[in-house]
Amino acid sequence: MNVFVIGVGLIGGSMVLDIQKEYTEAVIYGIDLNDNNLTEAVELGVIHKKATFADLEIATIVIVSIPVDAQLEVIPKVLDHINDHCLVIDVGSTKQQICKVLENHPKRRNFLAGHPIAGTEFSGPSAAITGLFKNKTNIICEVEKTAFKLQEKALEIFAKLGMRIRYMDPISHDKHIAYVSHLSHISAFMLGKTVINKEKNERDIFDMAGSGFASTVRLAKSSPAMWTPIFKQNKENILETLEEYISNLKHFKELMEQDNFSEIFNEMENTNYIKQILNGID
Amino acid sequence: MNVFVIGVGLIGGSMVLDIQKEYTEAVIYGIDLNDNNLTEAVELGVIHKKATFADLEIATIVIVSIPVDAQLEVIPKVLDHINDHCLVIDVGSTKQQICKVLENHPKRRNFLAGHPIAGTEFSGPSAAITGLFKNKTNIICEVEKTAFKLQEKALEIFAKLGMRIRYMDPISHDKHIAYVSHLSHISAFMLGKTVINKEKNERDIFDMAGSGFASTVRLAKSSPAMWTPIFKQNKENILETLEEYISNLKHFKELMEQDNFSEIFNEMENTNYIKQILNGID
Repeated sequence: MNVFVIGVGLIGGSMVLDIQKEYTEAVIYGIDLNDNNLTEAVELGVIHKKATFADLEIATIVIVSIPVDAQLEVIPKVLDHINDHCLVIDVGSTKQQICKVLENHPKRRNFLAGHPIAGTEFSGPSAAITGLFKNKTNIICEVEKTAFKLQEKALEIFAKLGMRIRYMDPISHDKHIAYVSHLSHISAFMLGKTVINKEKNERDIFDMAGSGFASTVRLAKSSPAMWTPIFKQNKENILETLEEYISNLKHFKELMEQDNFSEIFNEMENTNYIKQILNGID
Repeated sequence: MNVFVIGVGLIGGSMVLDIQKEYTEAVIYGIDLNDNNLTEAVELGVIHKKATFADLEIATIVIVSIPVDAQLEVIPKVLDHINDHCLVIDVGSTKQQICKVLENHPKRRNFLAGHPIAGTEFSGPSAAITGLFKNKTNIICEVEKTAFKLQEKALEIFAKLGMRIRYMDPISHDKHIAYVSHLSHISAFMLGKTVINKEKNERDIFDMAGSGFASTVRLAKSSPAMWTPIFKQNKENILETLEEYISNLKHFKELMEQDNFSEIFNEMENTNYIKQILNGID
């Protein structure tokens, strides 16, 4: 089994680390724009060999884990290079544009559009860890457009990695993920910005920051190279979530200005409902 | 050593659990408006005995860990009941009003105004855990107004619990803590509200929420009874932070509307500086 990973960072790297454990016969090939990443990935044991697009004809499986703008160009090219039995999986955080781009590709049935909801705030080959996908959700879009045998192969791998599967159309995916993932990132980045701007001349003030701040702002460590194209591709949905988030914050501020603290209590109590929602995520 | 804890919840409970370990001779007394909390605290071994204000005359140390509005009434009453050698410590998240209220109290020198920057999103006696304060910052305000021997006693306890100490005036405390703690809570509560409102009819959508969302929204599990009075007491500072946070979010939204994604990249890259800040907090 020849497994190619294009983009040897957090997601792709973690995925092939698990695949190595589950399929001891698998040979892992890495392709990356940055040759230093490949060298590091070989040294870390994330991949076995460096490779190029010309090698793709021997691939059994190709995992594409690169920024969502780059994949619009790379995945068609990958499909052009593979053999007829190869499975190509992506892991991008947006699904509408990539599905649209591949709609009429002659090898569309070799492609499975996925989005494993997993990650950390770190990036690069050294961020790859085993077990990242255990008990995590993998959203698969337009499953009916993938050849049945290749669906089976993909589901077997996802099952071995411990993922549960949800099926969704790309439009719904992008709409909902804007709320439960993309907005969280913006909220964290802007919280980080607000505090840094205010406190930049008084660095020891951060001694006052506790684990609550650390948790809320954690996603502001995320990679701008990964997230800028996500925000670009999901612009309309994200603008809607931002509009609502800003409006809720303004309402909270108005309640404070009006000294309406009983309503502020209610706002928080209603939102405590998040406890039930988070059971099973944390 | 008779240690009284008024409010046997997360902070007070965790503090006396550690004190029991470090001072094996200590007898822990609990006072709480809610008798069920006291019964539970005795069962859990958080306190040894239920007590009332009349018992305070035998106290060596009193830890007051109740909502910041309640402590404005309770701490003066506690000071009225204690003997001349007793140390009273508070742990409230706002410091300006309590320091003001106690300014002219005849037993002001028995009081030490503290704010241990520690906690979890849980509350009540069952939330009490050992080691909560290890390597956490405790901010002490107006230390010069506490009797020297009682300062010494307090610092010994804080050292045994593993806390590092920072001294600050109450006005600066309330101003800075608005940024690094209070704003994080509002940001999390409003994020939770935004997502719940949008997704309430589609509960299985939360399968899409990953650990990033869970982390960012974690503080929205916090107790409204604890946080409403904090927001009330620190209203002016919090309104300022909210104004800036909303303005930063609006600016981000405008950049998106203008398709200025290179500037969005810069915004995120600049905020990645939070990594250095968070080293040592997480």
